[in-house]
Amino acid sequence: MRVWRSAAALRRALAPARRRGWSIGFVPTMGALHAGHASLMRRARKSCNLVVVSIFVNPTQFGPREDFSEYPRTLARDLALCRREKVDFVYVPRAGEVYRPGADTVVVQTRLPRHLCGPYRPGHFRGVMTVVAKLFNRVQPTAAFFGAKDYQQAAIIQRMARDLDFPVRIVVCPTVREKDGLALSSRNAYLTPEERRRALALVHALRLGRRLIALGEKRAVRIEAGMRRLIWSEAPGASIDYASVVDAGTLEPVRRARGKMLLALAVRIGKTRLIDNCVVSPSRKNLSS
Amino acid sequence: MRVWRSAAALRRALAPARRRGWSIGFVPTMGALHAGHASLMRRARKSCNLVVVSIFVNPTQFGPREDFSEYPRTLARDLALCRREKVDFVYVPRAGEVYRPGADTVVVQTRLPRHLCGPYRPGHFRGVMTVVAKLFNRVQPTAAFFGAKDYQQAAIIQRMARDLDFPVRIVVCPTVREKDGLALSSRNAYLTPEERRRALALVHALRLGRRLIALGEKRAVRIEAGMRRLIWSEAPGASIDYASVVDAGTLEPVRRARGKMLLALAVRIGKTRLIDNCVVSPSRKNLSS
Repeated sequence: MRVWRSAAALRRALAPARRRGWSIGFVPTMGALHAGHASLMRRARKSCNLVVVSIFVNPTQFGPREDFSEYPRTLARDLALCRREKVDFVYVPRAGEVYRPGADTVVVQTRLPRHLCGPYRPGHFRGVMTVVAKLFNRVQPTAAFFGAKDYQQAAIIQRMARDLDFPVRIVVCPTVREKDGLALSSRNAYLTPEERRRALALVHALRLGRRLIALGEKRAVRIEAGMRRLIWSEAPGASIDYASVVDAGTLEPVRRARGKMLLALAVRIGKTRLIDNCVVSPSRKNLSS
Repeated sequence: MRVWRSAAALRRALAPARRRGWSIGFVPTMGALHAGHASLMRRARKSCNLVVVSIFVNPTQFGPREDFSEYPRTLARDLALCRREKVDFVYVPRAGEVYRPGADTVVVQTRLPRHLCGPYRPGHFRGVMTVVAKLFNRVQPTAAFFGAKDYQQAAIIQRMARDLDFPVRIVVCPTVREKDGLALSSRNAYLTPEERRRALALVHALRLGRRLIALGEKRAVRIEAGMRRLIWSEAPGASIDYASVVDAGTLEPVRRARGKMLLALAVRIGKTRLIDNCVVSPSRKNLSS
């Protein structure tokens, strides 16, 4: 495994693989790697000749009052994890290597970022799209791997890649969970033991929402109210940014359960903002279960 | 020379060249090709193994009251010109092949588009950046060639390529002019013979501005007033969008002549909006000439 600190060196290292027509799998990360990231690397390893991971805590996707400076930095452990997953190249850009002074070109999207996390994190998805576009241009991968835990992010990147014709296949991999159901997230490291227990309210709320739909509940307000009540009861004092039933394609709120839907949550437990989601369809099978 | 109507077919055709490590020179155009475009192709032919020209009248860079539907379409002549210039591939996307329904990802920039043509053509540079980003991703060229006649466009594309890390060298080639000095433009085709004569006011105004600076005039307002007066006198009834002295790097207005400057004009002759520009520096040599 080789670690590259400059895009130029990375590009030179990738050139022979590209000439051979090798497929290049890319997993962009902000470090603080966990089993969720490992699953992306394994998926990339399976389907590509060469696997590149980037580790870069991207300042432009954090709001002014968000946790950029506290975001966990665990480079030595991250590199060990990459090595275990047989990653070929890790790109860890030097400070100042990603954004040049005066850079003011950004990638924006109008529809998908309007929903869910968008209003709570102004500029976040613009920052994500811009850095992913830059990384795509630096790595020029064949395929890039994203986790379904960040469903909205994955949907936005998929649309960006399609709209701007990036020749990159976007692969969305299932959320990895702890045994008790908590979705893996680098931000789980912020939780106290008590908060960690309360954080289970998210996955429990999703299961409740899914069950309500399976039992034939059609009214989104009822499903949302059920999820909220469960969160408030299991995580007293939690602050809910949203607990929503939305169309899984457009992310627009639905009034009545139909088609492929996303149950999506963003909840602040103490100072930590956690998100989780699941996709559901009100199939006949669900109705009879 | 091969003509491709789909990006997928073009990509397949380019793959062998890419594997061989060939350089790919790209000239994006809106057709209605003239000697200015030919000079870009010749420059690409000189420095690259393979030359790709695209011909696509991009609707998103035209304003609602602009000339999208009247823009000259001369495909047969365009292809003949490309053949003469020994172009390898011409990409002429089929209608509906460039923008998919629902596409809403765009590339924006804050600073350079604020100046010169930006305020007169809202959304224009966003449309240009977005289509060029898409074409870069479809063609994945080594170098792309733009004309200095569209100075602001070239500056914005250069900045976009740098900011978003497109692995494309942006080459800006000198403006090609008629014998009498008129800058070549596809829009010159709109001019009546009388308007064609009046259109010379632009290049004459640039020459005057350059001469005033050479004679030691420092005040931008004086230089601009001189250019305006010349245009009004040679092209009575012309409507001047701007006649400006700006910093050649930032495109910001300058008060006093210093450093590398751009003299830039946008003038409506009849219904036709023409632009032209030249770069000048107030060197000692200029002062004594």
